Amino acid sequence: MNDFYAVIMAGGSGERFWPLSTSKRPKQFVTLFGGKALIAQAAERLEGLVPPERILVVTAQSLVAATRRALPQVPAENVVGEPMRRDTAAAVATACGLVRRRGGADAVCAILTADQLMTKPAAFRRILADAAVAAKKTDAIVTLGVTPTFPATGFGYVEPGVRAKTGTKTPIFLAKRFVEKPDAATAKMYVKKGFVWNAGMFIWRVAAMERALAKHAPALAILAAAVADAAKPAVVLKKLYPQVPKISIDYAVMEKAEEVLVAAGDFGWDDVGSWSAIENHFPVDKAGNAVAGAATLLDCASVSVVGEGAPVALFGVKDLVVVSTPKAVLVCAKDRAAELKKLVAKLPSA
Amino acid sequence: MNDFYAVIMAGGSGERFWPLSTSKRPKQFVTLFGGKALIAQAAERLEGLVPPERILVVTAQSLVAATRRALPQVPAENVVGEPMRRDTAAAVATACGLVRRRGGADAVCAILTADQLMTKPAAFRRILADAAVAAKKTDAIVTLGVTPTFPATGFGYVEPGVRAKTGTKTPIFLAKRFVEKPDAATAKMYVKKGFVWNAGMFIWRVAAMERALAKHAPALAILAAAVADAAKPAVVLKKLYPQVPKISIDYAVMEKAEEVLVAAGDFGWDDVGSWSAIENHFPVDKAGNAVAGAATLLDCASVSVVGEGAPVALFGVKDLVVVSTPKAVLVCAKDRAAELKKLVAKLPSA
Repeated sequence: MNDFYAVIMAGGSGERFWPLSTSKRPKQFVTLFGGKALIAQAAERLEGLVPPERILVVTAQSLVAATRRALPQVPAENVVGEPMRRDTAAAVATACGLVRRRGGADAVCAILTADQLMTKPAAFRRILADAAVAAKKTDAIVTLGVTPTFPATGFGYVEPGVRAKTGTKTPIFLAKRFVEKPDAATAKMYVKKGFVWNAGMFIWRVAAMERALAKHAPALAILAAAVADAAKPAVVLKKLYPQVPKISIDYAVMEKAEEVLVAAGDFGWDDVGSWSAIENHFPVDKAGNAVAGAATLLDCASVSVVGEGAPVALFGVKDLVVVSTPKAVLVCAKDRAAELKKLVAKLPSA
Repeated sequence: MNDFYAVIMAGGSGERFWPLSTSKRPKQFVTLFGGKALIAQAAERLEGLVPPERILVVTAQSLVAATRRALPQVPAENVVGEPMRRDTAAAVATACGLVRRRGGADAVCAILTADQLMTKPAAFRRILADAAVAAKKTDAIVTLGVTPTFPATGFGYVEPGVRAKTGTKTPIFLAKRFVEKPDAATAKMYVKKGFVWNAGMFIWRVAAMERALAKHAPALAILAAAVADAAKPAVVLKKLYPQVPKISIDYAVMEKAEEVLVAAGDFGWDDVGSWSAIENHFPVDKAGNAVAGAATLLDCASVSVVGEGAPVALFGVKDLVVVSTPKAVLVCAKDRAAELKKLVAKLPSA
């Protein structure tokens, strides 16, 4: 499909992987997982499906230069900066306008994430290609679902309905409903009933998204049209962003749109949500310790250590995350790692 | 007394305060306690009692240059390096020879420690002066005892006997016996019976020490005599050190000598034995956290932090010692801090 575009959403505040990530170098630039920046991996896994000139990035204005450096194969003008923080709906509307300008109303756009891992990139490309075909054929918005590997409480879920006639090898279903992050009991029920994780990735024909925006979020439809008409999107964004609502695309469009499909599968999706993820990505010894980098451990258990700064030595401790960078050292109880932003908010200069 | 000399024993392996102290920069150079190097404090607290030209230091050959830098007021030739590690008896014999050469058989020498704090230096000078008077008058070896403030299990004890007729204001007693570090029950009994801590400091007339060495440790008597005769002690030490026994002065002499006195008192003695000492020397908050340097704490309890390298941030942890230096980061269970040398032995390059 030669009018298939990918727009990588690269916001991020840098709190969850502090001090390795910071507001100036958010999670998508962290190289700890997979050996290179997550955003570079996000672009590279599209190889063979979407060429670099059809890859776009919507990111914070302050991160445009770093993003261009991380993606040398992507044309500089394809990396677009948002003049202020808005939620995902504004970014999707911007993406819609950017793709309309390049590929017209019939082009298909995949909204992708910048800071997740996929350990099965070939499976990901297959499902993405089939979702694009389905989006073009049905004119519905297609969301990517992830087959749950455990009853997670940290993600939203999508309930698949009847199978849609898409002609694709990947089975694609009508999305009956989107649900928020559940409690543990509800999560178990969801998994039992075949719900899938909402991975925050959407594929749609430009005209379909324009129609959905016009119906459910008129201010964003205006933004999309203005971006499509603009030779220099920066000027339009600067003017219109202050006026668009701070709202997520799930809430603004996906939960309201009539025609939403879900293409679910296992492509080794991993959102690498917090420091607890370390133990899934580095060798773990018999005592449950995972070490990335320079560290010496004695009588420790269930400790995760990242030594990218001064070498770390741990003695007689357990259930900790310890991260050493040249600029800061973090010592965090493992069961508090998900709340790290509370600590970051307290730092003298985060 | 114008023939009263002080010899500061400055060995130290740098394990107990790693990573702030290292083998190249042992505890006596740590500036965390009292704001300047402990060895500089050891020399300065003698002001008014022993002038710099009568202060000597016996240290490791590798530490001579650093020691001279730390003690600019002390003549360079007064800092003598041991060519290899021996125990305290060899160092005392060397001190005996150095003082004999400078002050003759009648001079009095105080063997002092390099890496302890004394919060009441005036009280220390008074007891030291009285001990010197007693040593000269009685020809006994006088040991300094510290009135216990709690039943410590980390120090040896001295049992005081009858009061000696020394004519000094400080009460000085016959030392009935020296005992090793006790268990908790024995320590309580010692304190109840009026035993005092053995602070590892001794005051003696040169002739008295020479006599004691000749009787109880002939090889060390030979060393002392050779040092006394040598224009350049380094040559003598290099030749004789390989032959002298590795033995502590307590074991070689003090526990065998007939005439030992003990001058006990409270001079705010603090051996600053391990990282647990932090909480005695820095402000402690309501949750029991003590912080020296750059650190941010959230939901922590009973944590001691030294931030001399990258700033430290701690979240949800307790009962830890965390030390950040530019070269290493230590995260240690508080109740293992006293065993730190086990960890240091495991480091790739300690």
